[in-house]
Amino acid sequence: MEIGDWRNKIDELDEQIVRLISQRAAAAQAIGEIKRQSTLPVYEPKREQQVFDHVCRSNPGPLADAELLHVYERIIDVMRTLQRKDI
Amino acid sequence: MEIGDWRNKIDELDEQIVRLISQRAAAAQAIGEIKRQSTLPVYEPKREQQVFDHVCRSNPGPLADAELLHVYERIIDVMRTLQRKDI
Repeated sequence: MEIGDWRNKIDELDEQIVRLISQRAAAAQAIGEIKRQSTLPVYEPKREQQVFDHVCRSNPGPLADAELLHVYERIIDVMRTLQRKDI
Repeated sequence: MEIGDWRNKIDELDEQIVRLISQRAAAAQAIGEIKRQSTLPVYEPKREQQVFDHVCRSNPGPLADAELLHVYERIIDVMRTLQRKDI
């Protein structure tokens, strides 16, 4: 496969990744609404740690856990902002 | 749906997201090998801009483009590191 073929594959993967991150954001929004109704805090460090642990357990490579967590820290950061915003 | 149900859904989404990011990393690794063989540069700003444009075009919401790009900047950053590392 040439670079162009790999890039087409990456573009297809990106479409799927974007769709899944968007579904994750919609679920985080739903949780945000429940939290507001029940005055639960947006920031729950224990749950965030569970997410990171689960991500590492699911990691098939070739990325190191630390690299994948680097991405997930950003995902969680964006989701937390979304939960705060959606008032 | 209660918080626990949404979190189960998020865990399932995370497994899929991790799998797809890993496939993306494997494709980036393959491109990295081709680049080394042909002395192409790892950093290609034009291609990175194409990826960001494609991500925004694929965005169905609820995240704003800027938030999704925030995640993708991190993904691209990790992939670039992987291409440099895999010598």
